[in-house]
Amino acid sequence: MNYHQILSEIYNEVTPLFSKGKVTRYIPALASVPPDKFGMAVCTLEGEMFTIGDAQESFSIQSISKVYSLTLVFKMIGENLWDRVGKEPSGNPFNSLVQLEYERGIPRNPLINAGSLVLADILLSKTRDPKKDLLVFVRKTSGNPAVDYDNAVIASEKITGHRNFALAHFMQSFNNIHNPVDDVLDVYFHHCGIAMSCVELARSFLFLANHGVIPDTDEYIISKSEAKRINALLLTCGLYDESGDFAFRVGLPGKSGVGGGIVAVLPEKLGVAVWGPSLDPSGNSLAGTKALELFTTKTGMSVF
Amino acid sequence: MNYHQILSEIYNEVTPLFSKGKVTRYIPALASVPPDKFGMAVCTLEGEMFTIGDAQESFSIQSISKVYSLTLVFKMIGENLWDRVGKEPSGNPFNSLVQLEYERGIPRNPLINAGSLVLADILLSKTRDPKKDLLVFVRKTSGNPAVDYDNAVIASEKITGHRNFALAHFMQSFNNIHNPVDDVLDVYFHHCGIAMSCVELARSFLFLANHGVIPDTDEYIISKSEAKRINALLLTCGLYDESGDFAFRVGLPGKSGVGGGIVAVLPEKLGVAVWGPSLDPSGNSLAGTKALELFTTKTGMSVF
Amino acid sequence: MNYHQILSEIYNEVTPLFSKGKVTRYIPALASVPPDKFGMAVCTLEGEMFTIGDAQESFSIQSISKVYSLTLVFKMIGENLWDRVGKEPSGNPFNSLVQLEYERGIPRNPLINAGSLVLADILLSKTRDPKKDLLVFVRKTSGNPAVDYDNAVIASEKITGHRNFALAHFMQSFNNIHNPVDDVLDVYFHHCGIAMSCVELARSFLFLANHGVIPDTDEYIISKSEAKRINALLLTCGLYDESGDFAFRVGLPGKSGVGGGIVAVLPEKLGVAVWGPSLDPSGNSLAGTKALELFTTKTGMSVF
Amino acid sequence: MNYHQILSEIYNEVTPLFSKGKVTRYIPALASVPPDKFGMAVCTLEGEMFTIGDAQESFSIQSISKVYSLTLVFKMIGENLWDRVGKEPSGNPFNSLVQLEYERGIPRNPLINAGSLVLADILLSKTRDPKKDLLVFVRKTSGNPAVDYDNAVIASEKITGHRNFALAHFMQSFNNIHNPVDDVLDVYFHHCGIAMSCVELARSFLFLANHGVIPDTDEYIISKSEAKRINALLLTCGLYDESGDFAFRVGLPGKSGVGGGIVAVLPEKLGVAVWGPSLDPSGNSLAGTKALELFTTKTGMSVF
Repeated sequence: MNYHQILSEIYNEVTPLFSKGKVTRYIPALASVPPDKFGMAVCTLEGEMFTIGDAQESFSIQSISKVYSLTLVFKMIGENLWDRVGKEPSGNPFNSLVQLEYERGIPRNPLINAGSLVLADILLSKTRDPKKDLLVFVRKTSGNPAVDYDNAVIASEKITGHRNFALAHFMQSFNNIHNPVDDVLDVYFHHCGIAMSCVELARSFLFLANHGVIPDTDEYIISKSEAKRINALLLTCGLYDESGDFAFRVGLPGKSGVGGGIVAVLPEKLGVAVWGPSLDPSGNSLAGTKALELFTTKTGMSVF
Repeated sequence: MNYHQILSEIYNEVTPLFSKGKVTRYIPALASVPPDKFGMAVCTLEGEMFTIGDAQESFSIQSISKVYSLTLVFKMIGENLWDRVGKEPSGNPFNSLVQLEYERGIPRNPLINAGSLVLADILLSKTRDPKKDLLVFVRKTSGNPAVDYDNAVIASEKITGHRNFALAHFMQSFNNIHNPVDDVLDVYFHHCGIAMSCVELARSFLFLANHGVIPDTDEYIISKSEAKRINALLLTCGLYDESGDFAFRVGLPGKSGVGGGIVAVLPEKLGVAVWGPSLDPSGNSLAGTKALELFTTKTGMSVF
Repeated sequence: MNYHQILSEIYNEVTPLFSKGKVTRYIPALASVPPDKFGMAVCTLEGEMFTIGDAQESFSIQSISKVYSLTLVFKMIGENLWDRVGKEPSGNPFNSLVQLEYERGIPRNPLINAGSLVLADILLSKTRDPKKDLLVFVRKTSGNPAVDYDNAVIASEKITGHRNFALAHFMQSFNNIHNPVDDVLDVYFHHCGIAMSCVELARSFLFLANHGVIPDTDEYIISKSEAKRINALLLTCGLYDESGDFAFRVGLPGKSGVGGGIVAVLPEKLGVAVWGPSLDPSGNSLAGTKALELFTTKTGMSVF
Repeated sequence: MNYHQILSEIYNEVTPLFSKGKVTRYIPALASVPPDKFGMAVCTLEGEMFTIGDAQESFSIQSISKVYSLTLVFKMIGENLWDRVGKEPSGNPFNSLVQLEYERGIPRNPLINAGSLVLADILLSKTRDPKKDLLVFVRKTSGNPAVDYDNAVIASEKITGHRNFALAHFMQSFNNIHNPVDDVLDVYFHHCGIAMSCVELARSFLFLANHGVIPDTDEYIISKSEAKRINALLLTCGLYDESGDFAFRVGLPGKSGVGGGIVAVLPEKLGVAVWGPSLDPSGNSLAGTKALELFTTKTGMSVF
């Protein structure tokens, strides 16, 4: 597979999309990111890395962090997680709150905001320093000990994150948040506020493509069965209200963030990360989803 | 009309209901109120007062306070209020949040919690001390300068009012709460935490039965048209999800609170207040609604 | 009260509204009604009739017929009605079906389409000819034996009433429609397809203003308590999603139809009907609601 | 892989589940199927067939037929299908109708009832005999020309399918059903009423595991890309409100029916069908989902 050639073709084909869509606004610190940024990185299990564009540049990973916190929590409490959060796709956005009410404060899955707030709450109850723990985990899986929080982004989210505060208080009324809301959101916003590059993201997801083991170091993270199950969650729930469309067009387990990043894995083969800050109305990178669709079409590889 | 006789009959007929229903639990400070408390007071425009049972005993007025804050706000900003809140019944409870989302953070009416939080927010923006203002208003309309806050109840609500915090943050995300959520809830919980007796409540609503003027003192509060409009809101929206049933059975504009109080008015005639702490599943006093149904049946008086 | 003068003023003030709003489209036979038609009739309990404009012209009464069928069913089965239908306002339109699902096929009240389909179903189960019965009832209460169905409108509704068919089948799945859907809709569309004038409508509602008795003939229809209760339902549920607004602005129990008619009653005083085919987005006559608001403002009369 | 051994182990492990769950009731003709029936069949691309239990016995395939009609429609009109139906998971059941209203009559995906009614409507508009066409398609892909409709089941569904009638009328009100509702449901109920065995079902899905080509005969059905896309839809939407759970536990694209059947494919490897009539509350075979979970666990094979 000539990944260099494929990435180069993809770059040309997605360029017209840079001016479409919209850079996220509700987090002021992200609003100034130039919409024509684009990077892509493919990292194979053998350790080969292929990149194009701004693949080395750090950006705010936002909801991609939910995959890391899910891994930490699932590793820690296993199937007990499903007492506090579901594992079904969330349907469309207007349902989010009525669903939470209808289902007595149990979020549909751990990859939407409400579910991830529960993950943060569990980490707060079970560990001493969940902010540090996630950073340690990301540094290890990405192979870069310099990965860090972007404090400007975190401060910006705290000021404007009204809806996340509402979700946490609402779940607290159902007794599904056990720690003070301010503490839960502090952890949550820190996790979202990590800055990483495509190169780091692609590498950091390899353990999910490799049956739970970091290929570089052979370090065991989770079991083969657990890795399979997290991949299943990514496929059915990883792209907000477009998870079905992403599965349909791309056919890989993946997770997006409103910073414009998307990471996906092809089990037993590779991790791939892409970054394009202009988003579609569902909050997914416009150039990024197209790039991944082209990637699976051109390589003929997908889980299906 | 022999009100003494009628109140006495009502008392006997509602006694069996004292042991049915449930005293509110979610505000711990209210959970210990004895369920067999019952009081009722009728106050005519001529100033005659008829009472039975514990009509002189103070209890937590809770949502009845929404009528006072609505009056203050409506007097102050008039029809501009309807830019921030609707005037339609709220339908059933499971809709409350999806409705708020669907209608972009605009509560259905000012007599549900979300709407009343907006009233508190408006008072915070427009006046210097909304906590004091409401107390002054209540003391004046009830004719008792000793009416006061119950600080134990207020403290209790602050600790357990997760859902109200959620509502305020959620409306903030739609820019329909302009002041800090903690300040808004401080005002809101204070208003709910006023303690009054049936005698005081019945008298305090007389201005609504008297075209906007306090009958005792001839003090003008609001116009005849404004009084009519507030009464209309009470009739269609005053008893949570049982407003239709209350209109059907009782046929008077009224407002209930989870402390077990209900106040109603018969325009051009009287105000009537009742207190029974045991609630039906919708949060309205079981003995209280029955007592008011008996009152309009026995007197043959209602707005219909 | 100089009703002639008042009606004349109202006519002048609502004229500018004739060109606003939209004549109903979804029933093709109604789409061709000229939007500048306007009539109004006031009929007192003493039998005096005051009119203006096209008050003698027949139009399709549509949902106003729900008040007649409710009266027939309530008279026949009394409080048992509430096993099959609720008595609460319906909240906003987008809830109609989810509400029906959430509440297991029980419509919120008898004055929305779903509730009225249940009324038709009950009549089908209990009587031999519900189409004829309603006509007999309307002829009697209106004092005009020539009132009749408009078969062109009925045929038109049958072809385009997909949503009503959906509602009936859906309630059938909850076992809340007992007769074949086609039969239920045949009755329902006939009731909606009655043609009446403002003069006939105003007179036909007098029994609701007169404690259940037709004033002209002293014929007993329903009890005082039943009349009061139907009026309460009209006030809380009679104008679709604008019932609260209508109570607020007009302050009378009333019922509207998409043919542009609205009828209201002032208990112990009068009936009033108005017709203006141009509708607001909720399906209520634009000139009609304004005319009734002006009527209660100018006369100073309302239930509040 | 010793499939014989694996199927035998699975059979033993799922036996205790036969007495749990409930055989479907709402289709009377299916209510009498013995709950301890169980069959399973694995068919590899090389044509090897492994079976256990009642794998040769025919049962009602019900919603599994949606995969066949989707294939026919997708082959015929391609991406135009998405103008009439979505491709996102449906979320939880209580949303079905409000979602349909919110999204203007466009069903979330073609594998829920509403979506499949649209498929039937499209087939009616585009072909002469959609009932026959589907039978021809199923006979070809299953390799058994004797596969046929079960007319008793079809008659039974027509009498009790109130909710499907409601859905069709409702979509008609949004102009997303173009043919008469009775015709659409006749096609729909026929497709659901096909009777097949596990052996036939497993073989009939092989084209989806084989890039769109029937492996036995090399007959081209759909393109590689189309097969991938249908598999993606099966994975995200194939098991009603448990699609996420099925992906999580089993990790294969699949489709269930209320007759108790489930079919799944492992791309480039095999098709597998299972039958157990006792259902969980979401309408999926209890023993069947467990059997497939055991199958992917024991073989270590899944798409993840």
